[in-house]
Amino acid sequence: MPTTSFITLLTDFGTRDYFVASIKGVILGIHPQIRIIDISHETQPHNVLEAAFVLKSAYRYFPRSSIHMVIVDPGVGSERRPLLVSSNNYFFVAPDNGVLSWIYMEEPHVRVFQITAEHYFLKSAGATFHGRDVFAPVAAWLSKGVDCTHFGPEITEYQKLSFPQPIFEGERMLRGHILYIDRFGNLITDITTSHLDHLLEKEGEIELTIKTTKIHGLKSYYAQGNPGEPNALMNSCGHLELYCCLGNACEVLKASHGEEVILNIS
Amino acid sequence: MPTTSFITLLTDFGTRDYFVASIKGVILGIHPQIRIIDISHETQPHNVLEAAFVLKSAYRYFPRSSIHMVIVDPGVGSERRPLLVSSNNYFFVAPDNGVLSWIYMEEPHVRVFQITAEHYFLKSAGATFHGRDVFAPVAAWLSKGVDCTHFGPEITEYQKLSFPQPIFEGERMLRGHILYIDRFGNLITDITTSHLDHLLEKEGEIELTIKTTKIHGLKSYYAQGNPGEPNALMNSCGHLELYCCLGNACEVLKASHGEEVILNIS
Amino acid sequence: MPTTSFITLLTDFGTRDYFVASIKGVILGIHPQIRIIDISHETQPHNVLEAAFVLKSAYRYFPRSSIHMVIVDPGVGSERRPLLVSSNNYFFVAPDNGVLSWIYMEEPHVRVFQITAEHYFLKSAGATFHGRDVFAPVAAWLSKGVDCTHFGPEITEYQKLSFPQPIFEGERMLRGHILYIDRFGNLITDITTSHLDHLLEKEGEIELTIKTTKIHGLKSYYAQGNPGEPNALMNSCGHLELYCCLGNACEVLKASHGEEVILNIS
Repeated sequence: MPTTSFITLLTDFGTRDYFVASIKGVILGIHPQIRIIDISHETQPHNVLEAAFVLKSAYRYFPRSSIHMVIVDPGVGSERRPLLVSSNNYFFVAPDNGVLSWIYMEEPHVRVFQITAEHYFLKSAGATFHGRDVFAPVAAWLSKGVDCTHFGPEITEYQKLSFPQPIFEGERMLRGHILYIDRFGNLITDITTSHLDHLLEKEGEIELTIKTTKIHGLKSYYAQGNPGEPNALMNSCGHLELYCCLGNACEVLKASHGEEVILNIS
Repeated sequence: MPTTSFITLLTDFGTRDYFVASIKGVILGIHPQIRIIDISHETQPHNVLEAAFVLKSAYRYFPRSSIHMVIVDPGVGSERRPLLVSSNNYFFVAPDNGVLSWIYMEEPHVRVFQITAEHYFLKSAGATFHGRDVFAPVAAWLSKGVDCTHFGPEITEYQKLSFPQPIFEGERMLRGHILYIDRFGNLITDITTSHLDHLLEKEGEIELTIKTTKIHGLKSYYAQGNPGEPNALMNSCGHLELYCCLGNACEVLKASHGEEVILNIS
Repeated sequence: MPTTSFITLLTDFGTRDYFVASIKGVILGIHPQIRIIDISHETQPHNVLEAAFVLKSAYRYFPRSSIHMVIVDPGVGSERRPLLVSSNNYFFVAPDNGVLSWIYMEEPHVRVFQITAEHYFLKSAGATFHGRDVFAPVAAWLSKGVDCTHFGPEITEYQKLSFPQPIFEGERMLRGHILYIDRFGNLITDITTSHLDHLLEKEGEIELTIKTTKIHGLKSYYAQGNPGEPNALMNSCGHLELYCCLGNACEVLKASHGEEVILNIS
């Protein structure tokens, strides 16, 4: 892999407190030339699934050998292990709580290391802020070229999230779910392009049902459809998404995470 | 112009989702040395006028040859065109929806190009996320020195916002409007220093009227005036602004965008 | 001190308006190679104590010779003076309103200069946005190596915040206060490790009282304790903190800034 130039940060720390800045300070103290890019710090506190989805949707657009640091870590200080993960393309540092579940599925040649080499940790380390005291210095040293194997032993058992998956019912029907709701109130489902490719071999028209609302057909872009009316399209990360043109689908449909979305070929 | 060192970003994408990070990843993949500065991602969703005003107030403070990328784009994927604009001092990439209206008025030697050169676009490009798939790679290649003329044909017709303008009523009265409300609840009007210079040739005292509230005279800085009391001053971007010392003028005056503000020389 | 590579920003400007971007543009126009790191822009408007605490908790993690710029400045334009402060390790630029109070207490060899050298200021300077017109250019020129003494005279009288301090009542009891509430609703008190070291010389168990709630003993990390139940630990910046495992202590305990927290050795 080429030299690492970038570390990205994805946390639930928000941007009001001293957390994110402390992490950046520690990284820059060890490796002043590295550049740090925020993915998000607005993940809902402790929401591991939300962070996992944002990571999955953003990480692959960064230059090869970038280090993605994901700190949504309700179990900080407990038995949960700090991990360093390498693939053919990227590095990841994160707690072992399933936040890297999609990485394990999508990246080629994943290797998982348990971080145990305490001499890299911040001396002042307590047990409440591993983002600053453990993950930041490990990411910084990794970015300077220290080999993954120096941070701890490779392991083969690690946490994966168990989230609902879309279920086919016969050849013409798929039960999916709302997976993520974005800033615009768009409802992103777990139904992806690969599910759709399978269904579209059948003749017929797409019909979506969410609660008591029915949506017919798919649009190509958001400006299609009447203002305020619920519609659907395949979005920029390959997921089926419900939206309202110039409106907020989440509010209009009063839907929340996990809500069922049924896709029929009629 | 000197070499471009900076790309700025102004969007309504918020900072919770994967949108902004994906854009930054794409830019850095093409031009790893470029530095990306956020102007704001908190523009109210789809509010083109708000983004236009923030851009106008910030862009000129950046080094010459900076590229300003403005993605508030409710019409993404539709007929609206992606634009690349150059002036004597800066570059701009944005959708053709009027978000650059003030740039057309204030920058010298503006040239407008319609972006059509698809070989610069991201291969995976769908029609819902041109920020990542069209504008990001165009800005990145532009920052590497590709000439404006390589991205598409120069055009002479493009969208401008039609927003209300202050209207003189006789020699001593001006009807203006609330144009923007900032984080502190300060009410920024469309009455500017040039309007005021014209009025102040008359003898008399300034009186402002908003709804049923009257404000007499202008202050020089925010700490003038009694706490909680509405006051006015010429602000740091040359606009007449209503504020409450240590308070929130928007809440105190219950005013919103477009509200009329009458200036009298009495 | 080594050459300055970083300027940090801590303000109450929020990230929606043009304020922070204008400051960054001015700095980069003077010193294009400098790197700017956000500490926070989400300080509650005009809350000097909140900014002082965030600064104290973050600044020491940055590389030596970093310049920390703190603009929470309700008195902008008035008699309050702009300051440049140097210590053995860092520089600070901030208004003279007490926002640097902890720096004066904790940093070795503090020197305080009143910024008066107007030829460094932005030409367009009005009296409402010293962050852009005074502090930004001063920080930028300082980062280029201009000596502190060039910006104005050294002074010995400057503002310090008067905030409540924990009070010992006898040998086994300490009355402290809620100093800061973070994004997670954790309640950070003004009781620190040094207070606790003194008390823990006594035999007995720690008992905390906030309003009518009693908490027994200290935990080591957040995942200890039953979900929703109030607990306490010594946090990552050395302060006693009340938290709820996977919950929001601020909501559960209905506590706010200044609330008394009594620590007993029973």
